[in-house]
Amino acid sequence: MKNPLLTPEIRELLEASDLPTLVEVCSEMHPRTVAEVLGDLDPAERLRVLAPLPASLRADIVSEMDLEEQAELADEASAKELASFLDEMLADDRVDFVQRLDPGVRDQVLPLLERAAREDVKRLLAQAEGTVGARMNTDFAKIPPGLTASQAIGRLRQQASRKETIYYSYVVDDADRMLGVVSLKELVLAKPETPVSDIMSTELVSVRASEDQEAAAKILNSYDLLALPVVDDQHRIVGILTYDDVADIVQAEATEDIARIGAVAAGAEDEPYLRTGVMEHVRRRMGWIVVLAFLQILTSWVIGAYEGAIGSALILAAYIPMVMATGGNIGAQSSTVLIRSIALGQVSTGDWWRVAMRELSIAGVLAIATVAVAFIKVYFFTASSQVPAGIELGHIALVVAAAIAAQTLTSAFVGGLLPLGAKAVGIDPAVVATPAITTIVDVSGLVIYFSVAVRFLGLAT
Amino acid sequence: MKNPLLTPEIRELLEASDLPTLVEVCSEMHPRTVAEVLGDLDPAERLRVLAPLPASLRADIVSEMDLEEQAELADEASAKELASFLDEMLADDRVDFVQRLDPGVRDQVLPLLERAAREDVKRLLAQAEGTVGARMNTDFAKIPPGLTASQAIGRLRQQASRKETIYYSYVVDDADRMLGVVSLKELVLAKPETPVSDIMSTELVSVRASEDQEAAAKILNSYDLLALPVVDDQHRIVGILTYDDVADIVQAEATEDIARIGAVAAGAEDEPYLRTGVMEHVRRRMGWIVVLAFLQILTSWVIGAYEGAIGSALILAAYIPMVMATGGNIGAQSSTVLIRSIALGQVSTGDWWRVAMRELSIAGVLAIATVAVAFIKVYFFTASSQVPAGIELGHIALVVAAAIAAQTLTSAFVGGLLPLGAKAVGIDPAVVATPAITTIVDVSGLVIYFSVAVRFLGLAT
Repeated sequence: MKNPLLTPEIRELLEASDLPTLVEVCSEMHPRTVAEVLGDLDPAERLRVLAPLPASLRADIVSEMDLEEQAELADEASAKELASFLDEMLADDRVDFVQRLDPGVRDQVLPLLERAAREDVKRLLAQAEGTVGARMNTDFAKIPPGLTASQAIGRLRQQASRKETIYYSYVVDDADRMLGVVSLKELVLAKPETPVSDIMSTELVSVRASEDQEAAAKILNSYDLLALPVVDDQHRIVGILTYDDVADIVQAEATEDIARIGAVAAGAEDEPYLRTGVMEHVRRRMGWIVVLAFLQILTSWVIGAYEGAIGSALILAAYIPMVMATGGNIGAQSSTVLIRSIALGQVSTGDWWRVAMRELSIAGVLAIATVAVAFIKVYFFTASSQVPAGIELGHIALVVAAAIAAQTLTSAFVGGLLPLGAKAVGIDPAVVATPAITTIVDVSGLVIYFSVAVRFLGLAT
Repeated sequence: MKNPLLTPEIRELLEASDLPTLVEVCSEMHPRTVAEVLGDLDPAERLRVLAPLPASLRADIVSEMDLEEQAELADEASAKELASFLDEMLADDRVDFVQRLDPGVRDQVLPLLERAAREDVKRLLAQAEGTVGARMNTDFAKIPPGLTASQAIGRLRQQASRKETIYYSYVVDDADRMLGVVSLKELVLAKPETPVSDIMSTELVSVRASEDQEAAAKILNSYDLLALPVVDDQHRIVGILTYDDVADIVQAEATEDIARIGAVAAGAEDEPYLRTGVMEHVRRRMGWIVVLAFLQILTSWVIGAYEGAIGSALILAAYIPMVMATGGNIGAQSSTVLIRSIALGQVSTGDWWRVAMRELSIAGVLAIATVAVAFIKVYFFTASSQVPAGIELGHIALVVAAAIAAQTLTSAFVGGLLPLGAKAVGIDPAVVATPAITTIVDVSGLVIYFSVAVRFLGLAT
């Protein structure tokens, strides 16, 4: 139970049908707290709590619900009830909700919305996923340039209830083109009769609706702004991106990167694991699995080519996994470190030489450990029955150790540079996922291992 | 060059020693923009630009600089210059800066700070890394309960310049215990003579300074607050965590998770890749490399135990990598998906059974691909010279396919449940990193592969 204190109280009021007290209690709480309490109730009960509440409070509570609970609510409520929730919601919360409705339900609900809300939803739905336009809020405060500070505050008082934020007001001309921005702090601190045009800031930071949301989040964050104006091609303000969107965008981008590092295609929406169908999970994973399965055919070719060598020194087979795994582990470390450093803007493609040198230095030190473990295992823990006739155990240990050393260096090099290479040709570095790098160094590692073994031990292939 | 338009202009003014114009130009720009321009200059030039500026603007600009540029500035500036930057900085920016100074420099600078600033730095430095206390800002607006709305606004006017935000004011009693919170929006919308105690919200959401910053970021984000009050054990307000910290915390936590997924220990600070020394990189990676190298000894034991079988059917060696890699790829997908779902709170330990069933269903479908590729490769692309006498190629193909099927299911199961298991015993699920899971399923996969082969093909071990 999310809220063991309040839930029983709400349930009691519901059972006693004491609606006036229920409305009073819910009105006094933060909408988020009410949403949490509703999370503890079943979907039918939720509707009964929401029904008697004032429309704006109801919309605030629904906006605060988890995705899963919103989905359950959508399943339970009638199209008319849904429309009444949606009419009062803020534009960005509303379009998020509509986006998650089943297409059939959506088609029923949309015609029931108020005209302005309906057109707003359609406009936002038309924006491409991942762009600023799809995430922005169209409820922002705008004022004409001719007002004084106190007139502007008066204007904000009228608008305040339906705006996401009144902490920034955008000063626009008749065509909605942005002239400046003024914060509520500036309006409050200014003398009441000061013209807004004297206090507004005209050094404007803005983004286009078609821009990538991640880039916009970086701007908002680096300027520590509460909101960033979103403009169209004619520099008319069409919405704002607010501070609370930044954390959501950062979260979503990290989720996408982590999925890609695990060789999983990112989901279109940030859908919870258990609510995503098996076939959707399969769809996200199947692509890489098939590609990597085909790539693995290369490893069987390499080993097939050295079958003769394995036949004359079976012990070589025992260290195939060690060579492969060392490459996988070292490569996974290098690639994840670089993928993240690129995402955070710490490393760019121009740094490739410094990255290569650094990865080789790091791998040089790590090789001390991987080589030592391999040499000790082979030299001290091999049963004499396993040592092929005519070959010295020390030589086998040296071959395995040399292959592991080469594999450690190669894997760090490949793991470090491949993400930069992807970036250079315009692919998301995270797509060069850890499993892809592992597979590549599997192949190179086996070639190194067997060619060293054949040459050094004088085996026929 | 970060700012090709402004940098030449600033450099020109510097060369002409036209300090009044320089000060004027810098004062008109956003501090972040000035910081970007300074990024294009060398450290000595930066100090020459900063020197003539008003102290508060200088502090704002330094706060906006990148970590790397701040470090260069600290190397270049004298202790006295550093102290003058720090005195005017906001408390949280200041302590971040001090934290990154070399201990020697820090000891020189601290005694030069103003007394209040010095004590503040010491208090913040004493907070444990990763807690709310270490991240909070101690510059917040507080007001006594007896004021009216207009008196409160008057009070804010006096405080405004040195506070991180005046959008929330915390109403406190004589002992700094929180009584309520009132937003600037509420103060502005209220009638001027309304007592603050009538408009303030008393349903307070707060966090303790000792709490984990990630948990606090989730609260701030879920309530869409601009700031969250931080209290001590006596419920006295000691600081605020602001909206711009949330994105930073989310970013830092994602970086930590991604590092762990790649089997890399997270760095203490979010240090850029190229500024982190080789030995520090080694330190973060060596632990897992050693552990995994030792675990890999198990795979050589398994293969050693089946040397006889490999000797009588050398072709079996060729598919060792395919079995291992399939496990690695499937396990990496399942573990990264689950690690992220747990981090986002979508899945909890109580869901283990549903997760297990779902991963097995997903793996069941993925197995169609992995098994098909393996069977086709073995059955249709094996040279007849590779087929051992007395064994049918079809049987070998079936053995490899069966092992791949079992490996696919096991790996998804282990990859899905191990992060949940880690969570259940209080370990960060991301620590059960992809390479660890890969190594585990390497061992189980080889055991499956060879025991199936020995039994089905009737080989001696």
